Amino acid sequence: MIDIPAREGRGVRVAAGQRFRVIDVEGGQVADTFAFRADDISEYHSAEHTRAYVSRLFPQPGEPFVTNHRRPILLLEEDRSPGIHDMLCAACDPERYTGLGVEGWHASCRENLERAMAGLGFDRIEVPQPINLFMNIPVRDEGELGWEPAPTKPGDSVTLQAVMDCLIVVSACPQDIVPINNKDPSAVAIELLDA
Amino acid sequence: MIDIPAREGRGVRVAAGQRFRVIDVEGGQVADTFAFRADDISEYHSAEHTRAYVSRLFPQPGEPFVTNHRRPILLLEEDRSPGIHDMLCAACDPERYTGLGVEGWHASCRENLERAMAGLGFDRIEVPQPINLFMNIPVRDEGELGWEPAPTKPGDSVTLQAVMDCLIVVSACPQDIVPINNKDPSAVAIELLDA
Repeated sequence: MIDIPAREGRGVRVAAGQRFRVIDVEGGQVADTFAFRADDISEYHSAEHTRAYVSRLFPQPGEPFVTNHRRPILLLEEDRSPGIHDMLCAACDPERYTGLGVEGWHASCRENLERAMAGLGFDRIEVPQPINLFMNIPVRDEGELGWEPAPTKPGDSVTLQAVMDCLIVVSACPQDIVPINNKDPSAVAIELLDA
Repeated sequence: MIDIPAREGRGVRVAAGQRFRVIDVEGGQVADTFAFRADDISEYHSAEHTRAYVSRLFPQPGEPFVTNHRRPILLLEEDRSPGIHDMLCAACDPERYTGLGVEGWHASCRENLERAMAGLGFDRIEVPQPINLFMNIPVRDEGELGWEPAPTKPGDSVTLQAVMDCLIVVSACPQDIVPINNKDPSAVAIELLDA
């Protein structure tokens, strides 16, 4: 089990076939999830290619997330949560918090990703559009987006399988200005399962 | 006027304040549009940052498209079209056509972008999620996406203003397998206006 404290991120290398679970430990928490091809990190999970591949805003269980070269990289195997996830919104970043009126430094998913990837040996990366597990961004009439609290309960999880060798990063989203984490960011975890 | 033949792309440098119109010359045609910051092309229009910035799937007239650093790069000034545009789907690319069963080479918006940027002096670029003007991708129940014909008439256009010095590329989407261009890709144009 890889515990990810509130507002932090962790990365791990997983082999093709490896299954893992992303767990919302206390509930009501968004987990920004990223996947890079292990032997060439210029290939990574791509939200815009995945939407076109599955013809929906987010894959259903049994469907893959694909890379910017349209190859499956993760399979959404099982969803033990309310099934509400987002793949429309960028990772939060320093500019996001400045725009929200925060003065000084604020933890962010982009910095968590960069730190985790540096820990895996990669100092320069593209920042992909994340898979925002448990994030509740309803698409309303005329394409308007809501920013709603994550409806997950403690222990809710999503099980993914790596389709190729890859680097996975998960960030316990530090957003505490808009209510997506119920204004109380908390811990998440990655549980590595049998392949 | 910069004429863009069917299935091709063109790039142009525009100064901050410059206004330009993207025109669907014959109607029923998607125009994939990209914007890079002129003095650092690692900053470019970002669909996922723009959605978060305007809290909707696509900006309305008067709203900006922002970069991956959340700075306005283009302003959507006027929409003389049915107002149906997409910012969910990746640019078509060789892998897209292979996946659709095409054998051999097929023109694509990604290659059009790369060729236009090479012509502006940049051989290596990131491929951003495009602004797919006139593209009709309805979001249905449960987040399912449709792939519908562009509903534009000849001469329909969108007027944009550059907020910073930037490189603009427009591709007349060559997609002729799915019906987004009414299975008959046609020409588009960029008209540079007074600033």
